[in-house]
Amino acid sequence: MPEINQNYNLLQKSYLFTDIAHKVAAYKKANPDHRVISLGIGDVTKPLVPAVIEALHAAVDEMGTAEHFHGYGPEQGYSFLREAVVREYMARGVSIAPDEVFIGDGAKSDIGNFQELLSADAVVAITDPVYPVYVDSNVMAGRAGAPLAGGGFERLVYLPCVRENNFVPDFPAKAPDIVYICSPNNPTGTVLDRDALTAWVRYARKHNCLILFDAAYEAFITDKDIPHSIYEIEGAQDVAVEFRSYSKLAGFTGLRCSATMVPHSLKVGDGRGGRVELNGLWNRRQCTKYNGCPYIVQRAAQAVHSKVGKSQVMKQVAGYLENAKALREGMAALGLEVYGGVNAPYIWVRTPNGMDSWGLFDHLLTKAQLVCTPGAGFGKSGEGYVRLTAFGTPEDTAEAIERLKGLSL
Amino acid sequence: MPEINQNYNLLQKSYLFTDIAHKVAAYKKANPDHRVISLGIGDVTKPLVPAVIEALHAAVDEMGTAEHFHGYGPEQGYSFLREAVVREYMARGVSIAPDEVFIGDGAKSDIGNFQELLSADAVVAITDPVYPVYVDSNVMAGRAGAPLAGGGFERLVYLPCVRENNFVPDFPAKAPDIVYICSPNNPTGTVLDRDALTAWVRYARKHNCLILFDAAYEAFITDKDIPHSIYEIEGAQDVAVEFRSYSKLAGFTGLRCSATMVPHSLKVGDGRGGRVELNGLWNRRQCTKYNGCPYIVQRAAQAVHSKVGKSQVMKQVAGYLENAKALREGMAALGLEVYGGVNAPYIWVRTPNGMDSWGLFDHLLTKAQLVCTPGAGFGKSGEGYVRLTAFGTPEDTAEAIERLKGLSL
Repeated sequence: MPEINQNYNLLQKSYLFTDIAHKVAAYKKANPDHRVISLGIGDVTKPLVPAVIEALHAAVDEMGTAEHFHGYGPEQGYSFLREAVVREYMARGVSIAPDEVFIGDGAKSDIGNFQELLSADAVVAITDPVYPVYVDSNVMAGRAGAPLAGGGFERLVYLPCVRENNFVPDFPAKAPDIVYICSPNNPTGTVLDRDALTAWVRYARKHNCLILFDAAYEAFITDKDIPHSIYEIEGAQDVAVEFRSYSKLAGFTGLRCSATMVPHSLKVGDGRGGRVELNGLWNRRQCTKYNGCPYIVQRAAQAVHSKVGKSQVMKQVAGYLENAKALREGMAALGLEVYGGVNAPYIWVRTPNGMDSWGLFDHLLTKAQLVCTPGAGFGKSGEGYVRLTAFGTPEDTAEAIERLKGLSL
Repeated sequence: MPEINQNYNLLQKSYLFTDIAHKVAAYKKANPDHRVISLGIGDVTKPLVPAVIEALHAAVDEMGTAEHFHGYGPEQGYSFLREAVVREYMARGVSIAPDEVFIGDGAKSDIGNFQELLSADAVVAITDPVYPVYVDSNVMAGRAGAPLAGGGFERLVYLPCVRENNFVPDFPAKAPDIVYICSPNNPTGTVLDRDALTAWVRYARKHNCLILFDAAYEAFITDKDIPHSIYEIEGAQDVAVEFRSYSKLAGFTGLRCSATMVPHSLKVGDGRGGRVELNGLWNRRQCTKYNGCPYIVQRAAQAVHSKVGKSQVMKQVAGYLENAKALREGMAALGLEVYGGVNAPYIWVRTPNGMDSWGLFDHLLTKAQLVCTPGAGFGKSGEGYVRLTAFGTPEDTAEAIERLKGLSL
């Protein structure tokens, strides 16, 4: 009889959003007249922009004619999109080749799958709090070790990001093989500046450490001095893979497209005393277990890079950032400590008076009918904070702020 | 320094289609006036049908309005599509629940990823010749063992499918944990009848063996007595996962959509002495490393299940089957032994006079400017055969047959 991959037995049940949904449902049932506003989930609310819709319609029409129909595409993505990504980097002074760009169906898939290329005994470091996919994909691969009684996993190295270190992860005592860094950060909404990124690139080069850099929220960077890509730091192409997404940039959460950069200069141990490019391994993985992003979706993504498309999506991003600003100010006016939300769509709010994160969740739900995400759900160091998202509609966000005004804490 | 997953070092370079491309390019360069017709690759040539195009345009329009926009969808697929798949099964007398149906971005991804759920020491059996993804995904997971000098892998169990056994795999001496079965078969174009499938289901039940059943080509079954689904065999839901695809049914090779069925009654060892449903594990895998098939693509797939959509796609399938018939007859008229192509889009031709499969490839290319796929590329038991596909245009297929008429072998 086949047995399962026993690493799946080590996974912790992901109760966070289920627990939230149950609590919200119970509240709604008990209070049918109250309208609950969700600032909890990280999904966008603005529709696809006209340039994208136009590109989709045109591509769909192509697919309906024998002459312009597109069947199997390259697993790595069409040249027209890989080259558009290259030009995006060039505009920031970063030189990357089209065959170092891999188009995928989302940063979640790409980040979740990328760890497959690495040995099962590699030591993995993650920031804490953290996007759960980094943890769970490594648990499934047997890289995390046993779950610990107090939460977390035995073999993972946790890098706390808290107000005491300005949400910049300190270097671990012993260098890990792999480190996941997300900036602008989910969930804290904070960002690594040029100095912090430079220090991490130097550290990785010195200690032969691979950085898996999640740049899914780079479009929300407003500060001119903050790098949008880790490749803006010299030497980063030797140590870092970068993951980009169209989800939050252009509202592609339901359309699915991503770009993952694997520079040729990035080499790791081949297990036989030599070094090998991860580029070739990722290419082989994608050719074996993936069949390419839909042609019509790649045409839609190409439109995001056009002059008119970019102007349209950046207006949406600016709208979300206005929500973020209003939420920051609303929470601060309550006397709360607020982080993030300037270069990111997430606002990270410290709970008052030693309240725990589920306590503030309950308070906001019952007193203001607002749903947030308790920080404890993102890891131990998330306790004492809650996450708000700026992805609501402007109307809901404005009403949420009105409700906050009357709140006592 | 991180080291790679060393199983990647065991992968055999996939030269088949590269070698073919090089040979064809060299021939074209030397013979610029000759028009080469490809019956080699398995990609469709007919465009998406009108019902699908209409559904895509409508869904794209929804995505352009705030009111009807769809962001993150369920990782498992939308209910409207899962339920459409359920009704498709019901029409064949098979009862399956919507939460046993998982919508994916292609059978290649689903089949490639599914093995992750199983232990690394599981013994895997594959038919030979075989679709390379079954092999390579298991090599990457460390399940195949070392490559053998004569081709193949140490720990894989090969089940030859040759004319001597009517292309029906015999049961292995020792029961494997997992067996991949593809019917209608790629590359042989042959099909397992009800008796053969029943025998395999019984064998799997008796020996606690998991069947991964690839039904990607079921739409091409013309014989009324051949099951379209392994679940038409009693008891199969306790032992089999079934993979379906919209690629060859509806020309979705460039649109990407699949359905994978994981019945709740299918349980395997949990590594702790108990049994566990694979359904929950696959759900967890997909929720961690996948973010759902695009909404617009799922609406397109739903249209394939509509009355008008189905009638349109089945006309295309019938067209491809006419190509298959013509190719069968054309090859048979040359005195060649021909298999498949009746319930499948592939024709499996035995090479004459002990010629090897690359020999016939060269002969067809240089004497008739036709490209086929040498059977040896699909495994040891593929030697002595070549594969032709019925997915060309009717015009190219007709011309190919004309050219065959003048061919001496």
